[in-house]
Amino acid sequence: MRATVIHGERDVRVEEVPDPVLLAGGSGRDAVVRVVAACVCGSDLWPYRGVQKTREPKRIGHEFIGVVEQVGDAVRDVAVGDAVIAPFYVCDGTCTNCVNGVSTSCLHGGWWGSQDREGGFADAGQGERVRVPLADGTLVVVPGVDLESTEGRALVPHLLTLSDVMGTGHHAAVSGGVGPGSTVAVVGDGAVGLCAVAAARRLGATRIVAMSRHPERQALARTLGATDVVPERGDEGVARLKEMFDGVGPDVVLECVGTKESMDQALRSARPGGQVGFVGVPAGGPELPVQTMFSTNVGVRGGVAPVRGYIEELLPEVLDGRLQPGVVFDLELPLDEVAEAYKAMDERRATKVLLRP
Amino acid sequence: MRATVIHGERDVRVEEVPDPVLLAGGSGRDAVVRVVAACVCGSDLWPYRGVQKTREPKRIGHEFIGVVEQVGDAVRDVAVGDAVIAPFYVCDGTCTNCVNGVSTSCLHGGWWGSQDREGGFADAGQGERVRVPLADGTLVVVPGVDLESTEGRALVPHLLTLSDVMGTGHHAAVSGGVGPGSTVAVVGDGAVGLCAVAAARRLGATRIVAMSRHPERQALARTLGATDVVPERGDEGVARLKEMFDGVGPDVVLECVGTKESMDQALRSARPGGQVGFVGVPAGGPELPVQTMFSTNVGVRGGVAPVRGYIEELLPEVLDGRLQPGVVFDLELPLDEVAEAYKAMDERRATKVLLRP
Repeated sequence: MRATVIHGERDVRVEEVPDPVLLAGGSGRDAVVRVVAACVCGSDLWPYRGVQKTREPKRIGHEFIGVVEQVGDAVRDVAVGDAVIAPFYVCDGTCTNCVNGVSTSCLHGGWWGSQDREGGFADAGQGERVRVPLADGTLVVVPGVDLESTEGRALVPHLLTLSDVMGTGHHAAVSGGVGPGSTVAVVGDGAVGLCAVAAARRLGATRIVAMSRHPERQALARTLGATDVVPERGDEGVARLKEMFDGVGPDVVLECVGTKESMDQALRSARPGGQVGFVGVPAGGPELPVQTMFSTNVGVRGGVAPVRGYIEELLPEVLDGRLQPGVVFDLELPLDEVAEAYKAMDERRATKVLLRP
Repeated sequence: MRATVIHGERDVRVEEVPDPVLLAGGSGRDAVVRVVAACVCGSDLWPYRGVQKTREPKRIGHEFIGVVEQVGDAVRDVAVGDAVIAPFYVCDGTCTNCVNGVSTSCLHGGWWGSQDREGGFADAGQGERVRVPLADGTLVVVPGVDLESTEGRALVPHLLTLSDVMGTGHHAAVSGGVGPGSTVAVVGDGAVGLCAVAAARRLGATRIVAMSRHPERQALARTLGATDVVPERGDEGVARLKEMFDGVGPDVVLECVGTKESMDQALRSARPGGQVGFVGVPAGGPELPVQTMFSTNVGVRGGVAPVRGYIEELLPEVLDGRLQPGVVFDLELPLDEVAEAYKAMDERRATKVLLRP
């Protein structure tokens, strides 16, 4: 089959790789999924840009939806022909951490594009097929949807966001403690930041400020629920937010970037006693200033989002159209043009690219 | 009157100072309180030990209870003769931050032993009398109690903890999100850590581990609600807690010390998706490791405790005897022996010292 392989800085290629098969002699808990749609994540740009070194050619991609083609003997909840969403990681759904709602810390889980714990290979997402370990724990079935029907095709972008960005934006909002009546600012206008806006609206925030300088993303943020837009950053951004919220700042700030500047912006913008919900993968720091947090009582909570559990929570609203996060995709390409997909995101010509194998 | 003045490292003295008076021409919102009991705080040991430099002689002490002797014209909720508890800071109770429950960030507040915003002096607590700015916002009346009756005298230690340590321990538990069924570990067996144990029990935690090596404090922790005691620290402490709680650690860890080691202990001990509630005044760091927090989803929340609001919440339970945090006092001295009070705490001969002017 064809799948994406990263060879080094700015070098991703679609190549012929072995077809995935169920693991013979394994636990029988794996499945093979034919990918209907995949996408490129902001974090895929790290190895693409050489920030993370690629020491040897490596399969890449961790967001996909598709149709089940084969299941192992022990798989119970997923059947051949089911439309499924995969979270950006593998989990069993039954260990202590999964039961505690932190399936990203699954004691038996793993990551796409690497060996699983039974000695098999969990293919990465940007390819034609994927061997899925722990299929019952990992996959969520989309009931009654044919992803290749006209109706199903229209749902694909929205469903695909549940694989990562929508669940991650939701995690920022949940970690920030957003609830009815909350005032919220969102730092970051990428796909995750935009989804965080949608999540905050869904959780009942009454004012949601998107911090963005890009006219298209400002418009998208308003579509998804932002009540205000603030283009200022740094000291000016902090001052603007304080001014807007009683001189003290919003209750919650959602940090959806991961840089030193964005975390600093978030910590300084939240009101005393407020909370920062963070999901931006920390790009090498900074460490958090504990003395500032102590004196302001601003809490910090978040991390790698346990989206597997959120898929089940958000799916009904995607299916009935109340939640349409797929608007974050502004480019669709065939898998063969994956190099252009990375290039477009790297050059900021696209917010998020959907790939069809 | 007599009051405590710190002159430098290991040099505290009771001296004759001016009697406090209501501020003529001020807003009329101040009061004068005769101190019935005060105490020495762990944080008072910082200037005492020279960790914080004392550049000129300075009044000291921020925990006291007493009886109102004079009130300004604009004072409404506090009357001459009332028994009152003062939190460890001054606040108006009406600004945005106070209304948000973060009275430690009061926009018009201040600290004991320093000038207030009307140009008056808020005396420190380790003295005979205190001028209290913003009396209605700052003081909490203890209804129907004569602090000098036999019954009242028995309540004094418990009431005095509401001035700081009990409210601070409670803030750790609230910030950590302790609720019914929570599993909790408390790092620190000083007065605040012991009060955090009591707070966790009160909030419904089902298992509470006191991390302590001192037999007397272990016993006190059990009296206050600890179900388990762990003497190990560092890697061994983390391993012990993981072993006790499903191999992953407790839901919540309360950090009640403020050192690099104690915060590290707390962050590493909480289970994935857990929370650290912290109230230990950070002793110069460390900054928090954001990458670890990201990968484990362990949140950190806390800071300088807004105890003013907690006094009202906890007072009824102190008055009816359900909550008896005054057991943390293990030495009582007259004000004139304040130097010995500091010395006993510095040398760890006492956990917390109660002073009677």
